[in-house]
Amino acid sequence: MKATIMYGAGDVRVENVPDARIQERTDALISITHACICGSDLWPYKKMEHDDAGRSMGHELIGVVEAVGADVRKVKRGDLVVAPFAFSDGTCVFCREGIHTSCVHGGFFGMNGIGGAQAEAVRVPQADGTLVVLPVGKDDKLMPSLLTLSDVMGTGHHAAVSAKAGPGKTVAVVGDGAVGLCGVIAARRLGAEQIIMMGRHPDRIALAKEFGATDIVSERAEEAVERVRELTHGLGVHSVLECVGLEESTLTALSVTRPGGSVGRVGVPQRGSIPEAQPSFYNNVTIAGGPAPVRAYIEEILPDVLEGTIEPGRVFDRVTKIDGVPDGYRAMNEREAIKVMIKF
Amino acid sequence: MKATIMYGAGDVRVENVPDARIQERTDALISITHACICGSDLWPYKKMEHDDAGRSMGHELIGVVEAVGADVRKVKRGDLVVAPFAFSDGTCVFCREGIHTSCVHGGFFGMNGIGGAQAEAVRVPQADGTLVVLPVGKDDKLMPSLLTLSDVMGTGHHAAVSAKAGPGKTVAVVGDGAVGLCGVIAARRLGAEQIIMMGRHPDRIALAKEFGATDIVSERAEEAVERVRELTHGLGVHSVLECVGLEESTLTALSVTRPGGSVGRVGVPQRGSIPEAQPSFYNNVTIAGGPAPVRAYIEEILPDVLEGTIEPGRVFDRVTKIDGVPDGYRAMNEREAIKVMIKF
Repeated sequence: MKATIMYGAGDVRVENVPDARIQERTDALISITHACICGSDLWPYKKMEHDDAGRSMGHELIGVVEAVGADVRKVKRGDLVVAPFAFSDGTCVFCREGIHTSCVHGGFFGMNGIGGAQAEAVRVPQADGTLVVLPVGKDDKLMPSLLTLSDVMGTGHHAAVSAKAGPGKTVAVVGDGAVGLCGVIAARRLGAEQIIMMGRHPDRIALAKEFGATDIVSERAEEAVERVRELTHGLGVHSVLECVGLEESTLTALSVTRPGGSVGRVGVPQRGSIPEAQPSFYNNVTIAGGPAPVRAYIEEILPDVLEGTIEPGRVFDRVTKIDGVPDGYRAMNEREAIKVMIKF
Repeated sequence: MKATIMYGAGDVRVENVPDARIQERTDALISITHACICGSDLWPYKKMEHDDAGRSMGHELIGVVEAVGADVRKVKRGDLVVAPFAFSDGTCVFCREGIHTSCVHGGFFGMNGIGGAQAEAVRVPQADGTLVVLPVGKDDKLMPSLLTLSDVMGTGHHAAVSAKAGPGKTVAVVGDGAVGLCGVIAARRLGAEQIIMMGRHPDRIALAKEFGATDIVSERAEEAVERVRELTHGLGVHSVLECVGLEESTLTALSVTRPGGSVGRVGVPQRGSIPEAQPSFYNNVTIAGGPAPVRAYIEEILPDVLEGTIEPGRVFDRVTKIDGVPDGYRAMNEREAIKVMIKF
């Protein structure tokens, strides 16, 4: 089967690899119909050292169940399913607390011998806990939005929940990528009163506005912080969605948070420490978030997608076949595309 | 009047200074009956550079109202009152949200021209918002416990609330000073199931057990983390009360927190950044807390003190007159005393 392998920074190839197959009694084998490239895939695309063995890429997918292991009960051959970027058993102590990304039997696609999802097929461990059956056909026009339940919509929602966005709250979103844009949807969906998108790319800003952003701040660094203060009567915002992970974006996030406010961080931290330990302390700012337990959120968000109340699939502004994946990485890395969908 | 002035590390003096007096229409003048030395006073005692002007010390007090400004309505001459370590108007946007330490008209004793409370008298700005009248006489045996409402009991409570301690939760307390010990009281009061005190001084451990600690971990660093894991089935704890503020204690706090858990930090951070940005992210650990808005908590905790349900005043293991304050600093710094009360 064809799969996407990264050998180092800028070196992504689509290659023939051994077919995915059932290995455990709790596995499902999925023939992928839709996958995509994630902003987090761009970190290794920028920085990965060359590795002859390569790294199997991709962790967002919708597909058709081809086969299931002997212990699988909740999905069956022929089901159209969506998988979150982390697999989980759904029954362990952490899953029960809604932290599926810390499942004691869980893990991540493309790591530790589990194949990636930018491929024709994938083995899904812990199928009963992981997969959610979709009540539509694979050619449904909702497919792009349903695919975002795999990661970016759930991740934007996690940022918003972690930042305690809600009715009457002022929100800032740091990062105008697909996650930040989904964060705008999530903040609006949760009832936030003011949603400030911090970004400067015209196409992304336009989409953010359609998704519910009430204000746009296109300045950088200190000036951006100043501008957010102006927009919030000098107070700063209650809730900040940090959707980048860089030192500078974290600094911006903490600097625009008002006393008693919260930062929900979902951008993978690129540094070993969190800046501003003292100002954030003196202001009683809460720093929360992490890898989104998107599995926990699918049931909550799915109805809104099915009803068309939210349209997170609009973050996909390019579609490719699997052979176009390397160019999709390039396009996203050069910010030519917001997010690239792969159709099989 | 006599007041405590610090001129540099290890150099604390009790001196005659100009009498405190009403300056604003919202002030109250308090004749202090009880004050104390705080663990946070030990940071400058260890590190302050020499300053000829000196720094007025102390921020915890009970006293009698001697006079009030023209606009003060809620307290009157003769009232016995407790003051939180931060004054606040009680009406601004942040006070209404319970973050009195960020009050837009607020501030701290011993800073910006406001006298300290290790003194015979003090001017209390924003008297109506700040002071709480006590329904007992100044010689009541509850006075030590009531004095802790000024800071350490409210701060321990803030650590516990920020760390989301509650029924069924496992808790670790990092720091066996007065705040950590009050944190044990707070965690128990909030219904925590298991409370692990991390400390090694026999007198403090004994008190922690009486306050409700279920387990004691006396190891240091890595071994301490290992021991907490053993005590929690390998999971770590839901809630960590960080009551120190050093790099090492913060590292310990983050290392013993289970996925999805929370660290409530009330120890004043001594470093500019928070370590473990990545592990805390991957584990979805929340970092919350800051200077405790103890004013917000007094009404909640006061009845428990009056009924004797909790006895935070037991953290005072030494009492002195004001002339003994310099030796009180020495004794606390050398961990000879947990917390020193000053009686006038």
